[in-house]
Amino acid sequence: MAINLKMPINKDILSIPGIKLAVASAGLKGKDHKDIMLIVLDNGSIVSGTFTQNKFCAAPVIVSKNHLKTTGNIKALLVNTGSANAGNGSKGIEDAETICKFLASELNIDYKKVLPFSTGVIMSPLPVDNIKKSIPNLIRDLKSNNWLNASKAIMTTDTIPKAVSKSILIEDQKVNITGISKGAGMIHPNMATMLAFVGMDANISLDMLQKINKEIVDLTFNCISVDGDSSTNDSFMLISSNQSKHSQIIKDDKNYKILKSAIFDIALELAQSIIRDGEGATKFITIKVENGKDAHECKQVGMSIAKSPLVKTAFFASDPNLGRILSAIGNTNLKELNIFSIDIFINELLFASGGSVIKDYEESKIQKEMMKPEINIRVNLNKGKHMATVWTTDLSYEYVKINSEYRT
Amino acid sequence: MAINLKMPINKDILSIPGIKLAVASAGLKGKDHKDIMLIVLDNGSIVSGTFTQNKFCAAPVIVSKNHLKTTGNIKALLVNTGSANAGNGSKGIEDAETICKFLASELNIDYKKVLPFSTGVIMSPLPVDNIKKSIPNLIRDLKSNNWLNASKAIMTTDTIPKAVSKSILIEDQKVNITGISKGAGMIHPNMATMLAFVGMDANISLDMLQKINKEIVDLTFNCISVDGDSSTNDSFMLISSNQSKHSQIIKDDKNYKILKSAIFDIALELAQSIIRDGEGATKFITIKVENGKDAHECKQVGMSIAKSPLVKTAFFASDPNLGRILSAIGNTNLKELNIFSIDIFINELLFASGGSVIKDYEESKIQKEMMKPEINIRVNLNKGKHMATVWTTDLSYEYVKINSEYRT
Repeated sequence: MAINLKMPINKDILSIPGIKLAVASAGLKGKDHKDIMLIVLDNGSIVSGTFTQNKFCAAPVIVSKNHLKTTGNIKALLVNTGSANAGNGSKGIEDAETICKFLASELNIDYKKVLPFSTGVIMSPLPVDNIKKSIPNLIRDLKSNNWLNASKAIMTTDTIPKAVSKSILIEDQKVNITGISKGAGMIHPNMATMLAFVGMDANISLDMLQKINKEIVDLTFNCISVDGDSSTNDSFMLISSNQSKHSQIIKDDKNYKILKSAIFDIALELAQSIIRDGEGATKFITIKVENGKDAHECKQVGMSIAKSPLVKTAFFASDPNLGRILSAIGNTNLKELNIFSIDIFINELLFASGGSVIKDYEESKIQKEMMKPEINIRVNLNKGKHMATVWTTDLSYEYVKINSEYRT
Repeated sequence: MAINLKMPINKDILSIPGIKLAVASAGLKGKDHKDIMLIVLDNGSIVSGTFTQNKFCAAPVIVSKNHLKTTGNIKALLVNTGSANAGNGSKGIEDAETICKFLASELNIDYKKVLPFSTGVIMSPLPVDNIKKSIPNLIRDLKSNNWLNASKAIMTTDTIPKAVSKSILIEDQKVNITGISKGAGMIHPNMATMLAFVGMDANISLDMLQKINKEIVDLTFNCISVDGDSSTNDSFMLISSNQSKHSQIIKDDKNYKILKSAIFDIALELAQSIIRDGEGATKFITIKVENGKDAHECKQVGMSIAKSPLVKTAFFASDPNLGRILSAIGNTNLKELNIFSIDIFINELLFASGGSVIKDYEESKIQKEMMKPEINIRVNLNKGKHMATVWTTDLSYEYVKINSEYRT
């Protein structure tokens, strides 16, 4: 299932000057499936990344972080499905580096200019030979107009590919931005999503690109949760070929804000599309927590609601058992939370105020709202000026089915 | 479903001198269902309680804590099902006190000697009139030999009643201990379980009873999780009529340890029976985390595994997708966790060591173990001398079904 109403339509996906992509079949997802993807960058390109905070982070995450630290001049990003190459100990790191070295020699570059990414089953060995064999085919397939195929090749339990594009003007120069992502389960911040790659040709310094990366990830991918389980492989990458002709962005100025705003739009749409395609999802739920002491407090309240299986099953059933939302809010660790000042709305219908249900509460009206595929929960803490928004799904039979049968 | 293999058999439930119980039908669970329960104590009895830390804690929890603070001489405990009387604001507190006052006047005692308890739907009003009407019937039913009926009357989504008894000797004097509990969903520490009442006739001071309460709850009810959702109404009550003839326990001595050990056995069996009867449970999973820096660290690792929907669905399917356990461990907030020193076992079969799968791993053997209804996960952190054990269930279709249809 997937809440596809507002999913990216995957048309008009823009190419990015200076960035080529390729897909091939390495036999990781069964015969004839494109299951491996390569991005190759022109000289002068820059890359910034945010990675999972899971302590069992995958070997490719360790290697990519190390390579990013060693050199700013990344030339290639390689993504395989089938194996997450996580929980494979030192052998996993060795395998990831073997692949980087093999690809580097084929491209005639330093292997530290390659970033590896993996998604699939944890504690399953990386199919090194299969991947090696597919690399010549990959290199032959490299082309600019290949983002949509790339978004398809990195899918696992995703039911639709996720790709979004945007074109903006900076100093009258066109800047193209295209992002792709994958992910449907094991989705929860720190960071969230399995993999997202956003390419652009904006002319920007590496430290400013890193700044955008950090600022955006906290408001987009780190604000979604399907099942509260943070993956071992999450990576959010910003890639710029730097080929647009506007003056270089080197500080937090007007051009920085224009670019950041556009990347934010792309990242948010990709993050939301992961929720819309969440495993077993029948509802897309936006939880907006407002008027808190700070954004952290608001996010904690939102995430406590988003992670509650009881709230999620109630939304699956369109059952206004809304006391579960109160209980979820009460389960946060926030000492200063005053439950008697909180108002809660479903799609702008107030149902709870001052710690209890409102007087003229009409359950049938709320139920009608809960039957819609897109639902907003709004929590007003009535104590400060800050807010946070998080996005989640309901919890359905289908989630249990998908995750019971994932490997079969 | 329920993992009933080792559930308390509810036979040989001992009466406690000085404690009488009653059940009646107040029309809260449909006609002719016993759905309300009363405990009345002889003079000289003492009561200690541990309550939920959910900030939206229920009105009866607020009132009970207040009454316990005001007087040590509790005379009556009243439990209704149907409504949790949580999320009802000041009206909820007023209603809980109205019931206490009505019962107190019927028993001719001070209303602050009554403790109210509720379990059922949150944000549903307390059916005050129904409860009032049933009180004369309740009082007529009071008798010592009524614990099993009491355990049945407090059930909600429970599939079997939970009652355990034990008789011990202190200074050659017989001491009886009987405990009852209810709970199957919205189960997670801080505290866990909806309601548990353990009665005894041990001669013990109130401060020592409170000490036992605190020490035991952290190792039993606070170590279980069905779905990670802490209830608004959780209460764990120790009640002693103080009528056994041994000398009073007033310090942490040999007699204290004998009594505490017996209460611990009762509490652990009741807590585990809540897991065995967990909503939709098909597996009873014990997670033992050993050789950690401290018990807190061990418990955090255990709970991270217990709360992961991906681990739980894998166990439901008996699918050795065991990388999910590594990922769950990696998701704890513990800074000092060294994933490369961890060993993990399923029913004493080692499958992961040094952060990766072992060399001679045989999946079919692990799968065979995972198909059993009782499964142990053992995590050796290999860094210290402390340990913790937590208990949980798998996550099945049935859990989603029960919680989608709870109110229908």
